[in-house]
Amino acid sequence: MGTNLVAALDVGGTSIKAAMLDERLRVVTALRAPTARAEPGAAARTVADQIAGLVRELEAGAGAPARATGVAVPGIVDDDAGIARFSANLGWWDAPMRDMLAERLGTPVAFAHDVRAGGLAEARLGAARGFDDVAFIAVGTGIACGLLIGGRSHHGGGYAGEIGHMDIGHGLPCTCGGTGCLEAIASAGAVARRYAERTGAKADGALGVVTAAQAGDADAVAVLTEATDGIGRAVLALGRIVAPQVVVLGGGLFAAGEFVLDPVRRWLSAHLVFQPAPELRIAELGDEAGCLGAGLLAIDAAASGSPASPGATSTETVDSTASTNAVAPQDVTS
Amino acid sequence: MGTNLVAALDVGGTSIKAAMLDERLRVVTALRAPTARAEPGAAARTVADQIAGLVRELEAGAGAPARATGVAVPGIVDDDAGIARFSANLGWWDAPMRDMLAERLGTPVAFAHDVRAGGLAEARLGAARGFDDVAFIAVGTGIACGLLIGGRSHHGGGYAGEIGHMDIGHGLPCTCGGTGCLEAIASAGAVARRYAERTGAKADGALGVVTAAQAGDADAVAVLTEATDGIGRAVLALGRIVAPQVVVLGGGLFAAGEFVLDPVRRWLSAHLVFQPAPELRIAELGDEAGCLGAGLLAIDAAASGSPASPGATSTETVDSTASTNAVAPQDVTS
Repeated sequence: MGTNLVAALDVGGTSIKAAMLDERLRVVTALRAPTARAEPGAAARTVADQIAGLVRELEAGAGAPARATGVAVPGIVDDDAGIARFSANLGWWDAPMRDMLAERLGTPVAFAHDVRAGGLAEARLGAARGFDDVAFIAVGTGIACGLLIGGRSHHGGGYAGEIGHMDIGHGLPCTCGGTGCLEAIASAGAVARRYAERTGAKADGALGVVTAAQAGDADAVAVLTEATDGIGRAVLALGRIVAPQVVVLGGGLFAAGEFVLDPVRRWLSAHLVFQPAPELRIAELGDEAGCLGAGLLAIDAAASGSPASPGATSTETVDSTASTNAVAPQDVTS
Repeated sequence: MGTNLVAALDVGGTSIKAAMLDERLRVVTALRAPTARAEPGAAARTVADQIAGLVRELEAGAGAPARATGVAVPGIVDDDAGIARFSANLGWWDAPMRDMLAERLGTPVAFAHDVRAGGLAEARLGAARGFDDVAFIAVGTGIACGLLIGGRSHHGGGYAGEIGHMDIGHGLPCTCGGTGCLEAIASAGAVARRYAERTGAKADGALGVVTAAQAGDADAVAVLTEATDGIGRAVLALGRIVAPQVVVLGGGLFAAGEFVLDPVRRWLSAHLVFQPAPELRIAELGDEAGCLGAGLLAIDAAASGSPASPGATSTETVDSTASTNAVAPQDVTS
C-alpha cells in the first residue's frame, strides 16, 4: 500500500514554491505562496506552521499523503543537524526547523540549504549528471555555492560554499562587513546596481545590463566584465582548493547563458597555468533546482524512515536514489 | 601465520624515508636513502626499482615480509588511479607508479600524494584526531594542503589542495608562471629568500628568520608578517569554500610553533566577519606524517587485498582502520 509521493518546498525570502512529486520527481501538484511574515522571534515558528499548512494543501490537491517532506531554505543552514543557523531575509537564528516540521507533520523531514539542494539536483538530474565532484554556483541576489564531493553534499556545518563572501581583491565594501567580496561586484543585484551607479540610468535587472552589453553599451560591458572576471577568480580559487570536475553556473545572471559564461571560461583559461580547466556548464534546472533537490532529499528521508533525522547519513543514502530516481530533464521541469 | 607488517615510504626530491610498521603503526625497522637519479624518461622506473629494493631491505631487517606497501610522493598525484601525474623535482610525467610497484612487489600497493598522506595521518593519529573535515597545510619548500572531507581524503584527480598556487593578491610572480601565489611569499623557502633580498644578509632558513624576528629584527618581522598574513588569507578562502573544522599547520615554517601560528590566528579572527573561526593547530607528527599516512594506506590496501587497486574505495575503507589502528602519538613517533 502507501503513497509514492513526497512534498518538496523551496522557501525564499519573498515566496515559497511547493510541489508534490512522484517517485520519478514528476510534479503531481504545485503551489506558490508569499512567505509568511512575523514578529522577530516568531519567524521560524510562523514559517514552520505555514509549511505544514502547505503540505496539507498539497496532499488535498494530490488526493494522497506525502511520505516525507523536503525543505530547502536560504541562509546559513546546518543540513545534518536540521538547523537554520541564520537568515537575514527570513529573520531566524538557530531554529531547529527539521524537528519543528517533523513534529507538525508526523512524517520524515529533510532540511537543507537551498543552493546545496539545487546543486544536488543539478548533479543528479541536471547539468552535472554523472559527476561526483561538482560545484553549483547560484548567482542571484547573492552568490552561494553547493558542493558535491565524492558524490556527497558537503556543508561544513553550514558554512561551506560561501563563495559570495570570498575576497577577490577589488577592495570594495560588502554588506557582510567584509571587503572585496565576490558578491559585491558579481551578484545579479550588484550588476544592476553598479550599472545604475555608473550611468545614472536604471537597467532592468542584471539581464537588462546583459541586453545593453549585447547592444554594444560600453558601460554595460565594463560592469559585466568586472562581474565575470570576478566569478573567474572565484572559480580559480575553487579549482585550487577542491578541483571540481564540473562547475555549474546558475541563478539570475546565468539565465543569459553563454554570453555571460564564455568570458568566465576565457578568464579562467588564461589564469589556470598548470591546472586543467574544469568543465563549465550552464544550469539546466532553472528555478526548479531547489525544489527538486528538496524532493531528492525527501525521497531519501522516506527511505531512511526516521521522522526527524535523515541526519549524518542522508547524503550517503541519497546516492542510492540516483539510479531509481534518475529522470530525463523534461520529466522534471514539466 | 602471516605477518602483520606493512612497508611505508615517503619519497622526497632528495631522500626517501622508509619504515616497516606493525599493525599499530609502530616502527619495526627504518631506512633512509638518497632518491635515485636517472635520465629524463627513466626517472619513474628507476625510483620504482629503488622503492622495491628498499622494501626488500626492510623485510630483511624485520625478518618478515610486508603484507602491503604504501608510498607517498610529491607533485601532482592521482591517488585513486595510482598515477604520478607530474613532479618537477622527481622528473616524472603520468607514471603509473602503483601498477609499476605492484608488479615489482607482488603484494598490494597504495599510492598517494605526500601531503594528503600526511593530512590523513594528522587526522587519524595527530593534531586533528576525531574530526571529519580537516585541512592539513604543509608549509615547506612549497605549500600544499591535504583535505579530509567527511572523513575521506579528497584529491580532485590530483589537483585539489593546491593552496600554494592560490592568488592571494600580492602581485609578485611565482615559479609556476602565475602571479600572487601564496607560495611566493609564505613558503619556508620564500621567507628565507625574501629576508636575504631585503637585508643582504643570509638567514639560516625560515627558522633563522623566526629567530631574528624573536630578537626584534624589524626586517624579519616584516617578512614573517607578510607570510602569516598570506597564510591567513588562504585559510580564510579555505574557510569560505570548505569550512574545515580544524586546520593543521605543519612543515618547516610551523616548526616555530605558536610564534608563527598566533599571527595567522589573529589575522583570521579580524577577517572572518560572519563565520566562526576554524580551530588552528600545529601539526603533531612532524616529519613522520607522510610515512605514517603511507602506512595507514598500506594497511587499507592489505585489507582490501587487491595488488594494484586500493582504488576508489581506499579512503572509505581506511575509515574502518581508525578504530583498530588508533594509537597514542607516543607509539607512533617513537
